[in-house]
Amino acid sequence: MRLSQFHLRTTKETPSDAELTSHRLMLRAGMIRKLASGLYIWSPLGLRVLRKVERIVREEMENAGAVEFQVPTIQPKELWEATGRWEKFGPQLLKIKDRKDQVFCYSPTAEEAAADFARQELSSYKQLPVNFFQIQTKFRDEIRPRFGVMRAREFLMKDAYSFHLDDECLVREYENMKAAYARVFTRLGLDFRMVQADSGAIGGDASQEFHVIADSGEDALVFSTGSDYAANMEAAVAAAPGPRAAAGEALRKVETPTQKTCEAVAALLGIELSRTVKSIAVMTEAGFVLALVRGDHDVNEIKLGKVDGLQGYRMAGEAEIATHLGSEPGFLGPLNPAQPIRVVADRDVAAMADFVVGANEVGFHIAGVNWGRDLPEPEVADIRNAKEGDRAADGGELRVARGIEVGHVFQLGRQYAQALNATVLDENGKAQVMAMGCYGIGISRIVAAAIEQNHDDAGIIWPDAMAPWQVVVCVINPKQDESVSAAAADLLAELQAAGLDAALDDRGLRPGNMFADIELIGVPHRVVVSERGLAAGTFEYRARTASEAESLDRAGLMAKFAK
Amino acid sequence: MRLSQFHLRTTKETPSDAELTSHRLMLRAGMIRKLASGLYIWSPLGLRVLRKVERIVREEMENAGAVEFQVPTIQPKELWEATGRWEKFGPQLLKIKDRKDQVFCYSPTAEEAAADFARQELSSYKQLPVNFFQIQTKFRDEIRPRFGVMRAREFLMKDAYSFHLDDECLVREYENMKAAYARVFTRLGLDFRMVQADSGAIGGDASQEFHVIADSGEDALVFSTGSDYAANMEAAVAAAPGPRAAAGEALRKVETPTQKTCEAVAALLGIELSRTVKSIAVMTEAGFVLALVRGDHDVNEIKLGKVDGLQGYRMAGEAEIATHLGSEPGFLGPLNPAQPIRVVADRDVAAMADFVVGANEVGFHIAGVNWGRDLPEPEVADIRNAKEGDRAADGGELRVARGIEVGHVFQLGRQYAQALNATVLDENGKAQVMAMGCYGIGISRIVAAAIEQNHDDAGIIWPDAMAPWQVVVCVINPKQDESVSAAAADLLAELQAAGLDAALDDRGLRPGNMFADIELIGVPHRVVVSERGLAAGTFEYRARTASEAESLDRAGLMAKFAK
Repeated sequence: MRLSQFHLRTTKETPSDAELTSHRLMLRAGMIRKLASGLYIWSPLGLRVLRKVERIVREEMENAGAVEFQVPTIQPKELWEATGRWEKFGPQLLKIKDRKDQVFCYSPTAEEAAADFARQELSSYKQLPVNFFQIQTKFRDEIRPRFGVMRAREFLMKDAYSFHLDDECLVREYENMKAAYARVFTRLGLDFRMVQADSGAIGGDASQEFHVIADSGEDALVFSTGSDYAANMEAAVAAAPGPRAAAGEALRKVETPTQKTCEAVAALLGIELSRTVKSIAVMTEAGFVLALVRGDHDVNEIKLGKVDGLQGYRMAGEAEIATHLGSEPGFLGPLNPAQPIRVVADRDVAAMADFVVGANEVGFHIAGVNWGRDLPEPEVADIRNAKEGDRAADGGELRVARGIEVGHVFQLGRQYAQALNATVLDENGKAQVMAMGCYGIGISRIVAAAIEQNHDDAGIIWPDAMAPWQVVVCVINPKQDESVSAAAADLLAELQAAGLDAALDDRGLRPGNMFADIELIGVPHRVVVSERGLAAGTFEYRARTASEAESLDRAGLMAKFAK
Repeated sequence: MRLSQFHLRTTKETPSDAELTSHRLMLRAGMIRKLASGLYIWSPLGLRVLRKVERIVREEMENAGAVEFQVPTIQPKELWEATGRWEKFGPQLLKIKDRKDQVFCYSPTAEEAAADFARQELSSYKQLPVNFFQIQTKFRDEIRPRFGVMRAREFLMKDAYSFHLDDECLVREYENMKAAYARVFTRLGLDFRMVQADSGAIGGDASQEFHVIADSGEDALVFSTGSDYAANMEAAVAAAPGPRAAAGEALRKVETPTQKTCEAVAALLGIELSRTVKSIAVMTEAGFVLALVRGDHDVNEIKLGKVDGLQGYRMAGEAEIATHLGSEPGFLGPLNPAQPIRVVADRDVAAMADFVVGANEVGFHIAGVNWGRDLPEPEVADIRNAKEGDRAADGGELRVARGIEVGHVFQLGRQYAQALNATVLDENGKAQVMAMGCYGIGISRIVAAAIEQNHDDAGIIWPDAMAPWQVVVCVINPKQDESVSAAAADLLAELQAAGLDAALDDRGLRPGNMFADIELIGVPHRVVVSERGLAAGTFEYRARTASEAESLDRAGLMAKFAK
């Protein structure tokens, strides 16, 4: 590959609307161009990287025994209605009417279509297990597309769907896929973690996510120092609190005229923030609920939504709060509500004694509150976020890091197959609904995530496996001296013969501009061929991560790539 | 590859709604499954063939110097409005509203998006010429999707867009692409023809189509026996007629009480059909037009639509005919209209003497009609279809064959770049609108077209390059005799080492069923490994196209694949 024959165009400007490093660098390197909000054109350079990721994912899926298929991107509404997801997916689902007014969507994932294929294709347990995967353009109509391809509306995804007669077989394939994913991210050269996850809109019994570790990651990940335990903040569980202490204080009303937050109340009273309780008022289909977490904790909305009767809850409005508690935000609590209310206390709140809550009266809180004495024993659930320093269930301590979700595996069980009547005959000739697993990898997102993890002031630093080229041979003044060009072409051929994806920068740029380009686009290895070097029998080699270049003879240079 | 690990499912039934051989065979072989009207799931077997076509197309595009990029499938309305194609494409364009009520379409082709990329990416003549291609899912909302993937709504297409400073450069790339296309179809092993074409909704100056020759083809192709001349019927031109003979007959009105067709009139009068004239009444924006073709010719609607003022014409209704001609269909002609009318005569009609037309009076025709004497000299144009046996312009004779369009190349000129203001600075620093070419190949359609061209009663007959596997080694009773399985595995390894895409059929089917499957799915070469054969030191080899199998020793077998 000669770069003079390849379309490459870097820019110096940083677009103002690009907030994220990877977005800025992909634009500066000329990997993507914006067509419309959340819609990007992949340039030849960008596509080269995308295809490398795609190839590794495909190879590892095939090595793991999955077979590739492809479903249409446009899928009929009826199929999505059969599983209830036409509604459940909400406005993220891009809905489409065709010329005959029939309704379709642009597939954001393909459980329904895969199950439809399976019910047409699979009739006997002898055909199981089977895992169908595809690498395909998907669409999610994000309300606020941003961060370039990190959260684009149209994106490239690998999605796989496995079918099984029994749950044990599903679990085996789930473990097989987890191992394949670990190989994918290892081969890509990324620092990643597998964490327990909430299964969200996809549903199912068990699910784990794969995250690329990066400070800019949207997701908080929780790890234990004492074990392999790792979970997305959405699903992370700290150790249960110890037993509740005995009541020691008397109940008393305290004046808190302007103290509307736990922090302000704790400061006024001179107590630890962990002695206060935050009251969160929500509405459910069955009415008003007050959720309680410790003042130093944050409510976990996903956990809260999993409490019986709280599915699909929303925050209560001021009028609803006034009706049920007779007060206003800043002074709310479980004592003396205007009407009888349901109270859900976090496990840590249920273990508290002598705590402080709002008085349901503007300007007042109540201290020395104790369960059983001042209030009935509460309904208890884990409804808070784990936090850095929490005790882990396995005895370690919890740490928090940021990650970018790039893969997700699910044990779906039988919900989709049941809804679509995807059955096979078992050994006894009896129809059995198949168990399903599904497994996704965000191919285009991996490109951005890798950049978030690997960059410096000069630009991108690709891991070898993802680089557009592993090595670029830079020719100084290619037109002035034919022997330099010839030597560079000869070296290129040797590098390629050694199995390297190598390119020749014969564009004729000045060395500074050429080197800046090659650094910006993240090429891991650079070799400079110059007249002076040739005279001395040397090449200048520099790894993208090294601070200095080295002068090497040909044997020494090739040895660099031998490992 | 072991077929026991690959998902393969053939069926015996022929679905009743599958009219076309390729559609039936793709369903029977289990290459595709229907998801909805015009939307197909590609099974692992089908996708394997599709990917082989895709790979050859990609390789030849890259060999020809094109670089791969990718634009989104979802594209904003504004971009399509800028070129006027939002309207022009009509209801085939799948229109989509997102959650914010912004309007998009699912790309059926990508001239606009490619030009948008070019205007962002290209600023100097030094970056030209460049040819960007992609291999991407496209959508056309066909009014009557049918014939399986031959005319599916969602399909896979290779589309390329080249950019140039001047027309000469565009013509060079156009020729380069034509040569690359010829290499693609040659490598695919297909009998194909390149023909001159109408450029249709894409527009532009010159265009040629590539057709796979097949009796079931939707398009009529016209060839000359005297040269390389070949054209789609839409665009095919016969030699101009010779000079007009002198008038010999007197004008006379003849009774034709029930003779409403040229055939019936010619029979009644005992004259050649070629002495009669067919009158076609159409409406344009400017009013009524009567088009005339010889009784033995068919009007060519595309040619007629290209006559000045006839763009977007439609057939006239009976009321309009009554108003302008004072008569009704079956008896129409250019003489004695009720109102002055515009008459457009085909070249061959203009060369006629002593001909017969309708009298514009029910039950009557007029014979002995002559231009200049009975009628003013007409406006002349080529508005008819060429036909088998016509004289070719180059002196040969025209022949007609059927073809399936699988590729199309266009010299677009500057219309798109002008509309989207895609300019570069030339050597003098002056902004110049770029010239564009575009080049399409219907990847998924090629799969169906190859089957239309290559099949027999037993199933598909793939050319080697497109076959899911070039050779399948069939094992008789793999579970009964380990030495047979081992010998088959050993042979498989040798075939693969020889560079063949080989698979082992170790599914344990009975020989008859196994052979029928392998024939149905079109594998070009079959080798049978059996206990009896091994004892004799032979393998049974059969080419898919051969009527008999041969007994060969190992060396003889490998020699079969050496060529």
